[in-house]
Amino acid sequence: MSVTSAQGFVASGVHCGIRRSAPDLALVRSLIPATGAALFTRNRVQAAPVVVSREHLRLAEPQAIVVNSGVANAATGIRGEQDARATAAEAAGLLVLSPEQVLVLSTGVIGKPLPLGRVLAGLAAAAASLSPRGGLAAAQAVLTTDTRTKEASVAGDGFVVGGLAKGSGMIHPDLATMLAIVTTDYPLRPGEALELLRPAVEESFNSISVDGECSTNDTVCLLANGASGVGRTAGRDREFAEALRAVCADLAAQVVADGEGASLTAEIVVTGAASSGEARAVARRVATSALVKTALFGRDANWGRVLAAAGSAPWNGGYAQLDPGRVSLRYDGVAVLERGAPLGAEPAPVAGARCTIELDLGLGDGTASYLTTDLSYDYVRLNAEYRT
Amino acid sequence: MSVTSAQGFVASGVHCGIRRSAPDLALVRSLIPATGAALFTRNRVQAAPVVVSREHLRLAEPQAIVVNSGVANAATGIRGEQDARATAAEAAGLLVLSPEQVLVLSTGVIGKPLPLGRVLAGLAAAAASLSPRGGLAAAQAVLTTDTRTKEASVAGDGFVVGGLAKGSGMIHPDLATMLAIVTTDYPLRPGEALELLRPAVEESFNSISVDGECSTNDTVCLLANGASGVGRTAGRDREFAEALRAVCADLAAQVVADGEGASLTAEIVVTGAASSGEARAVARRVATSALVKTALFGRDANWGRVLAAAGSAPWNGGYAQLDPGRVSLRYDGVAVLERGAPLGAEPAPVAGARCTIELDLGLGDGTASYLTTDLSYDYVRLNAEYRT
Repeated sequence: MSVTSAQGFVASGVHCGIRRSAPDLALVRSLIPATGAALFTRNRVQAAPVVVSREHLRLAEPQAIVVNSGVANAATGIRGEQDARATAAEAAGLLVLSPEQVLVLSTGVIGKPLPLGRVLAGLAAAAASLSPRGGLAAAQAVLTTDTRTKEASVAGDGFVVGGLAKGSGMIHPDLATMLAIVTTDYPLRPGEALELLRPAVEESFNSISVDGECSTNDTVCLLANGASGVGRTAGRDREFAEALRAVCADLAAQVVADGEGASLTAEIVVTGAASSGEARAVARRVATSALVKTALFGRDANWGRVLAAAGSAPWNGGYAQLDPGRVSLRYDGVAVLERGAPLGAEPAPVAGARCTIELDLGLGDGTASYLTTDLSYDYVRLNAEYRT
Repeated sequence: MSVTSAQGFVASGVHCGIRRSAPDLALVRSLIPATGAALFTRNRVQAAPVVVSREHLRLAEPQAIVVNSGVANAATGIRGEQDARATAAEAAGLLVLSPEQVLVLSTGVIGKPLPLGRVLAGLAAAAASLSPRGGLAAAQAVLTTDTRTKEASVAGDGFVVGGLAKGSGMIHPDLATMLAIVTTDYPLRPGEALELLRPAVEESFNSISVDGECSTNDTVCLLANGASGVGRTAGRDREFAEALRAVCADLAAQVVADGEGASLTAEIVVTGAASSGEARAVARRVATSALVKTALFGRDANWGRVLAAAGSAPWNGGYAQLDPGRVSLRYDGVAVLERGAPLGAEPAPVAGARCTIELDLGLGDGTASYLTTDLSYDYVRLNAEYRT
């Protein structure tokens, strides 16, 4: 189960010298013409590879993807864009593609220039080692503070969807230092990839948060090459959309579980909101509350903090609708608040690595859910020492 | 310099038994008829004392304020409001006021009922010990995780403005578990207090953040009793407004400096934004970024994180305007980015307990500034263990 699970894809991962000793350069390509799409961070500060990849997608269908870890090539000015273009051009030369058919992704420290010489030398090695068994090596080469590789695949009726992801810190909707590459041998027509990717990402990568940060580099790519040879039917189309969603959700859950310093994954489920947008705003606010997250770390079922966070969810210049007299709250399965009245129940300290917080706002039909982590000493340590 | 610095105010602080051994009940009153105002949290979940105090302010001019620490009396349903009303009624009886002339403030754990018997018994002791020298005792009794009392005063031409504050965690604009009481013997007419308090709070308590949390209880009160006997002039009015602003700013800075686990205060200064609202959104986003704050804790001048945060400042359903090619950034006095071009300068690790981060967006005239803290192990420890 990897980015090379689907037929007609090869990948590799090598050490080119951006990072001290870890693999830091990954390459993924389709062996036959593919169609594809990508979704990028909405941060106003977009890394050079995001700017360049966005431009390439307007000019051609993507056939190959280069990822480097260690340096984000963000806030690097004109030189950053030149470096990203040179990377794509070099990969294109090696793979007999045009530069516009290559997407470039970077993750790592912001504000440092890409060591282009090392990247170009590494690309030659990466191209030489491309293999249908190279998925894991690619998944390793994209990691930064991640502690585990993140791979997933789902087999459908005659086709496969597979992928890899990286992401550990700066994880927040709108795709924060989160990279994912999803490949499939299902046959898609030009333009369809984006249409299918958008809802899958909304429910997965855009519904997780480790630290509320939105990166300059986040990208999710989908390549579809039709190598399975399977025929399109309405049923298979539905099955493919479902498989794509499942792979994205699986990768997103792996990203959260490996969140920087995380000892626990919490699911925030909001129902009964006045609208789905407000459900999402409330779920997001709870999922990003430092007080909720430190309480999770302390295994303290401090539901009062959940309520306080829910009451201050930014929405349309104010806060999302919430009537304290209508809110019901279950903390890890224990009902603690019923339409505003505390039930006097004290949930046991959260045991294990999963916890569910359910909020019913009692106002309407809006629902949303979010995955988040606790906020631990290790999160602080990792991010206080990241560059040192 | 305290809440009793102005003439005609008395205060006290006692231990009534909500907290284990620390003082937990404060009383402040004006000895002669006062006019006043208060600003409250905008959280949709409002603590019972906020609901009751808001109601009282609509009915009468406030003459006395009761504050308890240890229990927030929030998410406590009908009983919580009854308890807040009973507290005000008891204080009114002891001080020969009507209940509507008494404001009640609470701070502490959410979701736990107020131990009313102890509060009522404590009120008798607090009323008996009211004194013009009671400011410090009152300032002590309002603390929770604070490590220091917070008091300030400014003497004008014939009048004084003084005050106390509490706040350490859940500190964020819109007044998060932050209580402040400001008193003055300057003569104000009914209605003027609110008009003067609002801008002073906007620039002070609403421009600080410790952890991005917005509490259910935050309140800033101003009582003005005219006991100085000083006459009103346009010049003195300006001087009074300035003194009020200075006292609020002083108290707000003390709150940040005592932020939970804080080892450093950072000032985020944004200029050149497309609008003042966007300047504020960007300053707030940088001030609340977990990555910026952990880097501050690590004394790592990681300006790339500042830029990434600035680029994702929520504004009008999207992000505040920012053109990476126009941004200039100074980190603790060192220019690192000039209109989008990195200067190659590496600021020295932040030394001392203060740091300034200046962002010029190069777009317009919008300016804003914010005070924030670093995010440390101690913040996590304090909030993971808070109830245990």
